[in-house]
Amino acid sequence: MGRALLTDLYELRMAASFRRRGMAGEATFSLFIRALPPQRGFLVACGLDAALDYLDGLAVEDDDLAALRTLGLDEPTVDGLAGLRFTGEVWAIPEGRTVLPGEPLLEVTAPIAEAQLAETFLLNQLSFATAVASKAARCRLAAGDAGVVDFAFRRTQGGEAAMTVARASAIVGFVATSNVAAARRFGLRPSGTMAHSYVLAFPTELDAFRAFVDDYPDNAVLLVDTFDTRTGVENAIAVIADTGVGDRAAIRIDSGDLAVLANEARRMLDAAGLAGTQIFASGGLDEYALADLREAGAPIDAYGVGTHMGVSEDAPSVESVYKLVAYEGRPVMKLSPGKASTPGAKQVFRGPGGDVIGLRHEHPPAGTEAVLVPVMRGGRRTHRESLDDARRRFEADFDLLPDAARRVRDPVPPPVALSAEANALATAVHEKLIGRTDTPGV
Amino acid sequence: MGRALLTDLYELRMAASFRRRGMAGEATFSLFIRALPPQRGFLVACGLDAALDYLDGLAVEDDDLAALRTLGLDEPTVDGLAGLRFTGEVWAIPEGRTVLPGEPLLEVTAPIAEAQLAETFLLNQLSFATAVASKAARCRLAAGDAGVVDFAFRRTQGGEAAMTVARASAIVGFVATSNVAAARRFGLRPSGTMAHSYVLAFPTELDAFRAFVDDYPDNAVLLVDTFDTRTGVENAIAVIADTGVGDRAAIRIDSGDLAVLANEARRMLDAAGLAGTQIFASGGLDEYALADLREAGAPIDAYGVGTHMGVSEDAPSVESVYKLVAYEGRPVMKLSPGKASTPGAKQVFRGPGGDVIGLRHEHPPAGTEAVLVPVMRGGRRTHRESLDDARRRFEADFDLLPDAARRVRDPVPPPVALSAEANALATAVHEKLIGRTDTPGV
Repeated sequence: MGRALLTDLYELRMAASFRRRGMAGEATFSLFIRALPPQRGFLVACGLDAALDYLDGLAVEDDDLAALRTLGLDEPTVDGLAGLRFTGEVWAIPEGRTVLPGEPLLEVTAPIAEAQLAETFLLNQLSFATAVASKAARCRLAAGDAGVVDFAFRRTQGGEAAMTVARASAIVGFVATSNVAAARRFGLRPSGTMAHSYVLAFPTELDAFRAFVDDYPDNAVLLVDTFDTRTGVENAIAVIADTGVGDRAAIRIDSGDLAVLANEARRMLDAAGLAGTQIFASGGLDEYALADLREAGAPIDAYGVGTHMGVSEDAPSVESVYKLVAYEGRPVMKLSPGKASTPGAKQVFRGPGGDVIGLRHEHPPAGTEAVLVPVMRGGRRTHRESLDDARRRFEADFDLLPDAARRVRDPVPPPVALSAEANALATAVHEKLIGRTDTPGV
Repeated sequence: MGRALLTDLYELRMAASFRRRGMAGEATFSLFIRALPPQRGFLVACGLDAALDYLDGLAVEDDDLAALRTLGLDEPTVDGLAGLRFTGEVWAIPEGRTVLPGEPLLEVTAPIAEAQLAETFLLNQLSFATAVASKAARCRLAAGDAGVVDFAFRRTQGGEAAMTVARASAIVGFVATSNVAAARRFGLRPSGTMAHSYVLAFPTELDAFRAFVDDYPDNAVLLVDTFDTRTGVENAIAVIADTGVGDRAAIRIDSGDLAVLANEARRMLDAAGLAGTQIFASGGLDEYALADLREAGAPIDAYGVGTHMGVSEDAPSVESVYKLVAYEGRPVMKLSPGKASTPGAKQVFRGPGGDVIGLRHEHPPAGTEAVLVPVMRGGRRTHRESLDDARRRFEADFDLLPDAARRVRDPVPPPVALSAEANALATAVHEKLIGRTDTPGV
């Protein structure tokens, strides 16, 4: 089954209709996020690499046509789709850059049927990756100097989502992932400790700890809360001291009051001469819990952050849209209540005064940088970056964000302005639309 | 890259350690959901088919070992994993059945290293599918007699998630999906209308409607809110009346006050003699909105339900766990605060008095049915069901749920009891554990 079926049926029906009518005019669609979810002061662009992989060489193949017949599409519609392939041009915000509402993550310019076909999967790939990169960035921010490890695999919304989460969290500064397949695929550092089941499979907790240190002397993280955390720490200290692996070992606390337990464990470790043994915490953590632990001064060296980050628990979706902004050189907009769009191909100009959304052909105002770059031409990728490029870009943009936008609780997003030219175009198109004879009620 | 790397690193480290130590004893792990998310009166088991596909023939292959070396695993660990393959037995709750907290969705019995390896991906596949089937069931419930269509593809957490959503929502009674690939893969009915971009690509809304009815006379759903909904309905009526497709056409409202607009549109359609033209509504809907529209008597024939259902917006994760409950014939449990588990392989007995979680070897109490069935033996699937089987099972269980559990707002889940035997075992194991000399603090 080809990529061309990774779409909503209405894209295919519209594409077929456009082609049957000879409507081959060039269209520009703008993919952007309408509004920030609650508790977000910024978003982080992510998912472009996968989106371009999907678009590159996208075509309706013969077996796709056969599949569509099986699904009951009529022959004129199937015929209308024959030979359709993506030949367009794409501009986009590179991965790792911060992004704000209304700023196009990506713009597609292509014959309208081709651009329409791609809507569903482009939205799918960019929306979740951007949502989760943004959530992960907040976790990394909240953790301060402590390392943060992606522990989300087991409860992400499927296996593909787990890969996206590992990659997105690495871009925003997570130091490792528990996900072996993702570590392999994206060149990340894999990280792993032990589970309660390991402890339970031995006659005693001490036996389990001895066995684990014996097998992993260079990297033993002992999980201390299977029965009772205080006793677990005592057992861990006994084994770590006995084997002399103190500076390479850690304990992991996965339940209870992490601040209290970490303080107690730190005192016990220090008293046993194990100042080099680290404390690792996990268990239902998110940026709010991390911020509280940091504020409480909990002596925790690293965190495993899983489910809440991996599904972006408090904002599992973003209000992403893919809107037609120009057709055959004519800027267009819709007026639906609460969902109006602004016309024309865009560019984002980023400078010390904040972001300005302008039209693509505008010259960047002095001291600003154009954020969207060309990434695809003639239906082929022209842009490919490493994860490290995206990481560096994130760090640079992240440093520029005002403190208010970086707050974990009640952040205030930076303002985004519309350029005078973009504004004038929106007004002109709006006035022309309300003059249309078939829409007298607007 | 093989399936064996679709796991957390700690599973591999534990598995290698078990094998290096000759710990080949049979373990039973129980996968269950600890507690219902808020606003859930029941869950719907889903994801088993994909989970069994993953487990069937699961093995660590030579190229997996090579990949692990690349990732920096030491030679004894890699050696410890060589030749590992899943040979276990699995019992599970078939898809479509309702399920409650503590009831095992699935239990794996296998040499401990094999069962441990499978933890991450089994949790991954069952957790999201069950979460979203449960959310979709609530939407279907709230819609009453109106049909509900899956519109989630564009904003699910990746492409795989979109497939899971289409399948899960079909099991709980959604009538169609917008997702063409999923329709093809699972034999579902695809459904599609038009987007605002279609309307914008024509000189006028009337032109767009005429073109669409011309191309899709048997199934034209006209989107009426691109400029102004009332005018859009007037334009739709003009075209539908003119072309005589009234009984095969529909209008779609995607924004604004759906109850008010649907009532107005219904009156306008009826006045124009188009009583057979249906009204389709969409736009940010979830079970709460559907319940409100139904209560308001909005004359809506079918709904497209997308993002909120597809990411299970108000409960994007469930508290699923995979706990060792027996090892080498010895029942085990952990005592971590707030996370204690109950020992022993389980069965769920379902009867008119509600569910009882007992031990697997117990005889079903009179009038009850054992809900878990054997699904895999010797590492091979022995169970395969059609989507229609799952659908029928859902309808049967759904009918049995008490009204209070089926309420959309503030549902009350049915009680779940622990059998006397399971309870006695938990008490005995707990007492034995707190007598362990290395856990005096419990």
